Amino acid sequence: MPELRRDPIIGRWVIISTERSRRPGGAPSPRETQGSVPCPFCAGNEDKTPAEIMAFAPKGRPANAPGWWVRVVPNKYPALQIEGDLHRTGEDLFDKMDGLGAHEVIIETEDHSRRLEDLDESRVRDVLWAYRDRILDLKKDPRFEYILVFKNNGSAAGASLAHAHSQLIATPMVPIRVKQELRGAEEYFEQKGRCIYCDILRAETEKKERIVEMNEDFVVLAPFASRFPFETWILPRHHGSDYASLSEEKYLSLARILKSVLGRMNGVLDNPAYNFVIHSEPLKSHGVAHYHWHIELMPKIVHTAGFEWGAGFYINPTPPEQAALYLREAKP
Amino acid sequence: MPELRRDPIIGRWVIISTERSRRPGGAPSPRETQGSVPCPFCAGNEDKTPAEIMAFAPKGRPANAPGWWVRVVPNKYPALQIEGDLHRTGEDLFDKMDGLGAHEVIIETEDHSRRLEDLDESRVRDVLWAYRDRILDLKKDPRFEYILVFKNNGSAAGASLAHAHSQLIATPMVPIRVKQELRGAEEYFEQKGRCIYCDILRAETEKKERIVEMNEDFVVLAPFASRFPFETWILPRHHGSDYASLSEEKYLSLARILKSVLGRMNGVLDNPAYNFVIHSEPLKSHGVAHYHWHIELMPKIVHTAGFEWGAGFYINPTPPEQAALYLREAKP
Repeated sequence: MPELRRDPIIGRWVIISTERSRRPGGAPSPRETQGSVPCPFCAGNEDKTPAEIMAFAPKGRPANAPGWWVRVVPNKYPALQIEGDLHRTGEDLFDKMDGLGAHEVIIETEDHSRRLEDLDESRVRDVLWAYRDRILDLKKDPRFEYILVFKNNGSAAGASLAHAHSQLIATPMVPIRVKQELRGAEEYFEQKGRCIYCDILRAETEKKERIVEMNEDFVVLAPFASRFPFETWILPRHHGSDYASLSEEKYLSLARILKSVLGRMNGVLDNPAYNFVIHSEPLKSHGVAHYHWHIELMPKIVHTAGFEWGAGFYINPTPPEQAALYLREAKP
Repeated sequence: MPELRRDPIIGRWVIISTERSRRPGGAPSPRETQGSVPCPFCAGNEDKTPAEIMAFAPKGRPANAPGWWVRVVPNKYPALQIEGDLHRTGEDLFDKMDGLGAHEVIIETEDHSRRLEDLDESRVRDVLWAYRDRILDLKKDPRFEYILVFKNNGSAAGASLAHAHSQLIATPMVPIRVKQELRGAEEYFEQKGRCIYCDILRAETEKKERIVEMNEDFVVLAPFASRFPFETWILPRHHGSDYASLSEEKYLSLARILKSVLGRMNGVLDNPAYNFVIHSEPLKSHGVAHYHWHIELMPKIVHTAGFEWGAGFYINPTPPEQAALYLREAKP
């Protein structure tokens, strides 16, 4: 059973999960499997993954058979385990709980050769819709406090398989980074009565220098205090705290702008490894006024060094205004 | 002029420094320069670095000449700039200050082929003593609030040169990670009247399962909520909040245990890339009762993925008890 452990000083939770070290390439240096080994995420290899949780496929297709275009399966090497009750224990200063949670893989296409950003808009929409479906389903489980959806693309970004996929992890606590955002946003709201993200959007869309692109529903910008070169955030223009409660047509709009910003990034940086994560409100919040869901997109083009790890203090050689300019001028 | 920018939501400061992208290998993917290019850190190449700030060398040696065994120089591609007044400005939500600070390189040996851990104890002590000397000198500058000493070893850990060196950055604010530690430790002290690190040391040295080694003055342990496989911390056994105020013989004792734990780690993990950082109290504190200085040592054997970046929520495949056991049994 994996274990969740809390750092007694700063309150950060860590997953201790020996199961993870069994995945391809082991934990040290994941490798992209290309060509030689049969890819477990390809159509026709459905028996190489745990049984599917859901799939988008034509009616009448039997489960775990080809024909699908989006498929969600449990992670074969899960960081957390779905079965069991949540036991919380403590000894001296050391608090821990059972490593309960869900760890799922969203296979974004049946086609090994296509990346998320190569798919048609409606197919990207289906991937975003699958995230929503899974969030709404897992939300029913009262043990979970948070669901983090994220994508690791390329081995430098932590992917162990090359076939286009993203992941989600449902956890029995809110991760520290999101907690910090919530705390900061709540303090601001208490002072001003306004959502800080809405205020940032107002300031940024007026000034325009850090805006990469916009459509009716979303803004892509390079954040003022970007940690990484060419880091961008996608934010809904109208206030909303919950990714999973968008109206249906908004997911298509989001798909369009996500595909576009990935295309720009690939053009400027020559197809870098990248990560994105969706930050949304905790599962037990319901449409709070102070928090604003968003996607953080981080190309992996620099090594993170001791200074960054040790101090949480990033050195970014590319001003976000310059990054936004390059990205704005690139082909979507 | 580099710029320091504050994230308006969580309060994290970031250095925006275009200067850094000019260093060897550019900012994207630093490379270790080996062999072909003359190494600027080797004895005889003193003119390839900015003029030295200090050196340990025989009496009578002229500055910037061979003969030294530890040499401190300004970073040629500094993240922050030493000259100027500190201007703090704000616009809308966006706070920034001039990128004022010091960024220095501690060249740990004149010999290109030796690593820090290959040096004699007394030589390692001299490196640790050089850290102290620089801290005490920079502390006199009232513009600085913090000095972070760190080492990137190997390109996977962010080093752009192979020759053994560490670095320090003096900044006009306290980095967020240290701030979080200070806040957590202060809260604990308010409740209990005791240093949380002292309490952890008491619990750990009693239980022993996460202890790697100890001497009279220091303990090396694998922290309960380790973020990374084989992460270890070196802590002074007797309370102290300031790295730079140890008595002289303690630096030799620290050198001994640092050399030993690096040796163990190299044995178990086959000479991994690694980072270490020294966490000490802010410069304007003076021996606080609630904070305990320490060194965090992190071998770089796993890729950090989207989940970690996006949530500050680490997945560690190696339980610290197991890591401690391996390290205990390894040759120092």
